[in-house]
Amino acid sequence: MTMNRRILLAKRPVGLAAQDDFSADEQPIPEIKAGEALLKTLYIGIDPTIRTWLSTAKSYLPPVEIGEVVRSAGVGRVVESKCDRFKVGDLVTQLVGWQEYSLLTDDSFATVFPGSINPRHAMGILGSTAVAAYAGLIYVGRPKEGETVVVSAAAGATGSMVGQIAKIKGCRAVGIAGSDDKCRHVVENLGFDACINYKNDGFREALRETCPKRVDVYFDNVGGWILNEVLGRLNMGARIVLCGAISVYNAEKKPPGPSNYLNLITVRGRMEGFNGMDYWGKRPEISAELQRWMAEGTMKNYETIVDGLDEAWRTVNMLFSGENIGKLLVKVAEG
Amino acid sequence: MTMNRRILLAKRPVGLAAQDDFSADEQPIPEIKAGEALLKTLYIGIDPTIRTWLSTAKSYLPPVEIGEVVRSAGVGRVVESKCDRFKVGDLVTQLVGWQEYSLLTDDSFATVFPGSINPRHAMGILGSTAVAAYAGLIYVGRPKEGETVVVSAAAGATGSMVGQIAKIKGCRAVGIAGSDDKCRHVVENLGFDACINYKNDGFREALRETCPKRVDVYFDNVGGWILNEVLGRLNMGARIVLCGAISVYNAEKKPPGPSNYLNLITVRGRMEGFNGMDYWGKRPEISAELQRWMAEGTMKNYETIVDGLDEAWRTVNMLFSGENIGKLLVKVAEG
Repeated sequence: MTMNRRILLAKRPVGLAAQDDFSADEQPIPEIKAGEALLKTLYIGIDPTIRTWLSTAKSYLPPVEIGEVVRSAGVGRVVESKCDRFKVGDLVTQLVGWQEYSLLTDDSFATVFPGSINPRHAMGILGSTAVAAYAGLIYVGRPKEGETVVVSAAAGATGSMVGQIAKIKGCRAVGIAGSDDKCRHVVENLGFDACINYKNDGFREALRETCPKRVDVYFDNVGGWILNEVLGRLNMGARIVLCGAISVYNAEKKPPGPSNYLNLITVRGRMEGFNGMDYWGKRPEISAELQRWMAEGTMKNYETIVDGLDEAWRTVNMLFSGENIGKLLVKVAEG
Repeated sequence: MTMNRRILLAKRPVGLAAQDDFSADEQPIPEIKAGEALLKTLYIGIDPTIRTWLSTAKSYLPPVEIGEVVRSAGVGRVVESKCDRFKVGDLVTQLVGWQEYSLLTDDSFATVFPGSINPRHAMGILGSTAVAAYAGLIYVGRPKEGETVVVSAAAGATGSMVGQIAKIKGCRAVGIAGSDDKCRHVVENLGFDACINYKNDGFREALRETCPKRVDVYFDNVGGWILNEVLGRLNMGARIVLCGAISVYNAEKKPPGPSNYLNLITVRGRMEGFNGMDYWGKRPEISAELQRWMAEGTMKNYETIVDGLDEAWRTVNMLFSGENIGKLLVKVAEG
């Protein structure tokens, strides 16, 4: 009998995650009953939202409890099935958690992908990252041709798609990232018009130079002082799309909010939060558009893959130290 | 020859305004040329926005320069005219400034009201205050029947109208004000469902008790910690209407922003700034609706009147010490 290796939350991380914040165990793989299927995890997606679930911070899902399997999106292949919805061989995404096997039921919040696609794309360019980037930019940010779109964490999974979509829609795309290498990647490989390394001095001047007509849409993944600076450079009628705030997720105390929010009155601007999951019903059309852009070569996909479930905790920190380019995945099994 | 008494900005106030921040002079009344008319100021409106114009803070209009007449909305009567647009006897609102007479030209940003109405209403319940309250609540906040609308500075000119409109639209209206007397006024005279005195302890609990179904629309006139607290009590899909931030206008250093802004992501909420002037074209229909409500008795109008142009500087401070109920006006002349 094969066992199911699981990574559990042992205690809540303070700041960066540490190995002893987690424990591992092995449990027998559950036997499936009628109406269930068994999903073998291939990849887990490491997204900033995981860090919020490890804390007691208010989020759109409750915190992971101590002793529970760490919550995480992932993709797997159906290896056994006693239900109609999932066939053996199907690729399926769901909140698989940090474990080798998870159960599927007829009413799981899970999505079936054609078994022939690259499983990694099911979470990234054809899955939740795509829906977040596309829906946040297009439905919440509503960019118009010729406008300037700024996106933070521009080399990351979501940010890199946001900027590319902005370019396709005829906007000026300006990225913000944490190293010269990433900025080069964002401009040279992803085709942004410019990218600012926020770790260099002179951010405000760089923002002024790269956004001469000010900022119409800011897609914010980081929060903190960068959000505040961009709030000071808005155009009339600007829209700020709040996707996340990775700069504050590790903070032990809530940092001050953006004092420049008052500029929203001056420019008649709007700052709006969203959750990609609310737009999940639009995934088929979003995926179709992205596949077309990938085929045309106007949309490029980059990933960072780390091997081994036991490395998952370490990869969460990579998001904060900025080591990943594109979607960050942990490979759990072949298949 | 009659003279035109004017109040000029002598130096920028630090904190509350002081008498020696201003100077007075008398100039000959300008002779009007063809295409011009002369407006005799009856009332000037004392609005929080004046305080921002006295500083160098970025606003929707440039700062008042040292030595200039203090900028201010007001209403006057046309006493001489050499143009077709304005007839002697007309009531007209424009940025009259703190002075006894101002010029009108064919292209002035000015509005003519029927000579028969109460001149004070031209700035309040039928003028700019009404447009700000109505447009901000209805077009930006978009309240739906049964929702909870919270408004700060609820006893003030704008806030008192916002809450009354919310009630008329079938919402629960909860005010926030700075004294028990004001709260009583807001509930008993204006018909709000509840009003919280923010100077008492236990604001968070009071907000929870008065908004058991959380907050759907927050019309914010004050900013600061109150905005932050309300951000922590939002319902899904909530809208925050940014009208002003009177709590920070006197501040010498920009206070921290609202750290709870991240809750906008959790609730998929929206925080949006607006300026009533953008909706000036809708004034006729807004006025018609308000006049109907006043006639029905569902909308009540309160004003605080101070006599004498030389008292204008002192009345600005009344906004911050919270001494006024309803629209704050300085009476400059009979007529």
